[in-house]
Amino acid sequence: MHDVDLILSGGAALLMDRNFSRVENAALAVSCDRIAAIGSKSDIEQNYRAPRAIHVEDGLLLPGFVNCHTHSAMTCFRGIADDMDLMDWLRNYIFPAEARNLNPHVVYWASLLACAEMIKSGTTTFCDMYIFEDETAQAASEAGMRCLLGEGLFDFPSPSCQTPAEGLAYSRRLIEKWRNHPRIGVLITPHSLYTCSHDLLIEAKALADEYGLMIGIHLLENGMELAGLDLKFDKGAVSYLEEIGYLNERLLAYHAVCLSSQDIRRFAQSGCKVSHNPASNMKLASGVAPVPEMLAAGVCVGLGTDGCASNNTLDMIREMSLASKLHKVHRLDPTVMDAKTMVHMATLGGAKTIGLEDLIGSLEVGKQADIIVIDMKKPHLTPVYNDYSHLVYAASGADVHTVVIAGRPVMENRRLLTIDESDVMSQVRKISKNIWSSLKPVT
Amino acid sequence: MHDVDLILSGGAALLMDRNFSRVENAALAVSCDRIAAIGSKSDIEQNYRAPRAIHVEDGLLLPGFVNCHTHSAMTCFRGIADDMDLMDWLRNYIFPAEARNLNPHVVYWASLLACAEMIKSGTTTFCDMYIFEDETAQAASEAGMRCLLGEGLFDFPSPSCQTPAEGLAYSRRLIEKWRNHPRIGVLITPHSLYTCSHDLLIEAKALADEYGLMIGIHLLENGMELAGLDLKFDKGAVSYLEEIGYLNERLLAYHAVCLSSQDIRRFAQSGCKVSHNPASNMKLASGVAPVPEMLAAGVCVGLGTDGCASNNTLDMIREMSLASKLHKVHRLDPTVMDAKTMVHMATLGGAKTIGLEDLIGSLEVGKQADIIVIDMKKPHLTPVYNDYSHLVYAASGADVHTVVIAGRPVMENRRLLTIDESDVMSQVRKISKNIWSSLKPVT
Repeated sequence: MHDVDLILSGGAALLMDRNFSRVENAALAVSCDRIAAIGSKSDIEQNYRAPRAIHVEDGLLLPGFVNCHTHSAMTCFRGIADDMDLMDWLRNYIFPAEARNLNPHVVYWASLLACAEMIKSGTTTFCDMYIFEDETAQAASEAGMRCLLGEGLFDFPSPSCQTPAEGLAYSRRLIEKWRNHPRIGVLITPHSLYTCSHDLLIEAKALADEYGLMIGIHLLENGMELAGLDLKFDKGAVSYLEEIGYLNERLLAYHAVCLSSQDIRRFAQSGCKVSHNPASNMKLASGVAPVPEMLAAGVCVGLGTDGCASNNTLDMIREMSLASKLHKVHRLDPTVMDAKTMVHMATLGGAKTIGLEDLIGSLEVGKQADIIVIDMKKPHLTPVYNDYSHLVYAASGADVHTVVIAGRPVMENRRLLTIDESDVMSQVRKISKNIWSSLKPVT
Repeated sequence: MHDVDLILSGGAALLMDRNFSRVENAALAVSCDRIAAIGSKSDIEQNYRAPRAIHVEDGLLLPGFVNCHTHSAMTCFRGIADDMDLMDWLRNYIFPAEARNLNPHVVYWASLLACAEMIKSGTTTFCDMYIFEDETAQAASEAGMRCLLGEGLFDFPSPSCQTPAEGLAYSRRLIEKWRNHPRIGVLITPHSLYTCSHDLLIEAKALADEYGLMIGIHLLENGMELAGLDLKFDKGAVSYLEEIGYLNERLLAYHAVCLSSQDIRRFAQSGCKVSHNPASNMKLASGVAPVPEMLAAGVCVGLGTDGCASNNTLDMIREMSLASKLHKVHRLDPTVMDAKTMVHMATLGGAKTIGLEDLIGSLEVGKQADIIVIDMKKPHLTPVYNDYSHLVYAASGADVHTVVIAGRPVMENRRLLTIDESDVMSQVRKISKNIWSSLKPVT
């Protein structure tokens, strides 16, 4: 009999390992922050004992979802402006709202609200790029979440940094402060090729190389950006990225809607990663990223929600559903982006996309215990012929019952254990009143 | 002081009337099955008293959603086959599964499961076409739902009827049996132009005319159907419908993905209605219906979920979200199908689509008391700048708190009051085992 810290059991478990293994009547033994054993409930209970056990009758066990691209603190702008042309939306709402309102207090509470929402919809790891990211790190740390985050770098002043040099210094402080945290990692995030100078991009890369970090960047999100970058760079954006040494396995491109076939081949050859964010791409009318083509070429693609000003949720289950349906209708082929592919993309595929596949993304002995349980006893999930189908085509984030991150239960039976849900909602409601007033002259 | 039967109150109410009126701190007085008064909570409480009061703090009051196209009993096939070519899916899974399994017992329980799911996601009225519809009527009646339903008519035998004549006789019995029911209505539903002969279509119309009923029919769902009907009819499907007298305000076309500009003009001129079913059209890769064009031309368009074999949920909130995002990206225009338009389409627009706009679709004094309350105290619905935006872009069916149909509470705080949820799930689970076994030789 081995002593462990937690035994989590339910109905079936989808391990999301390379073989898409499935265990019936599954249980996982968790020791400290890691998975110690996986087996049938009876086997695990015969061989392991734990001071804490969580059993969800008919619950479906899965690795937690990995959200590859978001701006957490943008929860505070959720629904402030929709159904607009991109430039109207950015110039008259989002940019002024950010300039007038973002400060460490707002980013902290809005990030904590994002953590509450993400945990409640089964996300255990998120990759973030925004402003005052030290506050987002603090919120994620308190919430018990895992994340990889980067301070947005721009040529122009942001609410946190007046100059590119200040942005780089902020990034370095972020790295130094959080480098020994077990769940918080940092990446370097130059905002985009149209907001960062050549020099800033070079310096950002030097910083990433110094610490062996990933670089996350918005890339070719829509036709307007493509046209602009085609004018700016002789041989196109991806050739430019190659020239400045960005095309390697530590590059994570957000969106990549307008990649050409040649770009896709280069991405595949050089190991670049892509976060596909279908809700945002659809809602902002950015276009349809060539994801089936990327997958066929061997590009590593994860899923992201983008921020709440353009989605407007952080629900990865809905993102799987959207991605699958979008590509089916876009290609007029119902066989692409099937349910298993989507669940892979939201778990192990996402972990690979942000460089954490050795730690998370699948339920395997020795990996981090980032585990979610879906409550399958719901009318809209009845009957069950195929779990993958239900996850992608019928479930929503609200069906997540219990969430464990690094061995620690952070939600049980939909009750958050690390966040005072009612307090965080009330704080962000207060903040939203100021934000709304600050926009009144513009609207 | 007036005596009424129920007072329902919350935060704001979106009345969904022609002016998109909004009432703050709203309350509704309900007398028998109708709305007796709408006002502020304090006004209503000063002037009305009721033996029953339901108050949802911060709840958003709305008319219930109208699902304009579904096959309720197909819940029993949810997730049985996905990600397949349409003909593979139909011939090797859906048709054999239906032929081998459908009987009154299965249709009753699967329809009751659908009612549970619909109520739990805020749908109060649905328009159905399937087989053994008397059982669906029975389930809806017991569940307290409102519906309009029709027995599917085909040239070939169905599990309920061996011949077209039997199908018409079944329809007539359905009409006679339910004609005095306050919430159950009947329409005539020839399945499609490719499964119904000229004679059957003519007889179906005669029956509809005899009772003044609507006709619902699948129409131009995808390119294959369009090509087939172009071969079959000299001047195309819509001209054929005109010839046989179908083009009038009592025609409800399901899907209408492949309507031409000329077809749209004819639909608008003759008052034909359309049910748009984006999840099904996307998942089956049928194509994108020209809905913005239809709306611009003045065609009345409602939203439908289609059946659970092709969606795979009955959640109208998700359908609003999908429809909005699909058309934005398809047209590369983020301003089309804005949030208000979508909520209208799911409520009053849907009521018009199925010919019930005098009874339901908006909260107005004298109309039926079909009312839902959304629980806005959720992290993913915080903060609130715009209710319509949250309904379409952030909420899901799981956020529906309370549902009243014809003045009767059928769900309160997510507890179903007319359906034994656990019993219906267990019955359909048993049924699903037989269905699965019946398909084994094929799979």
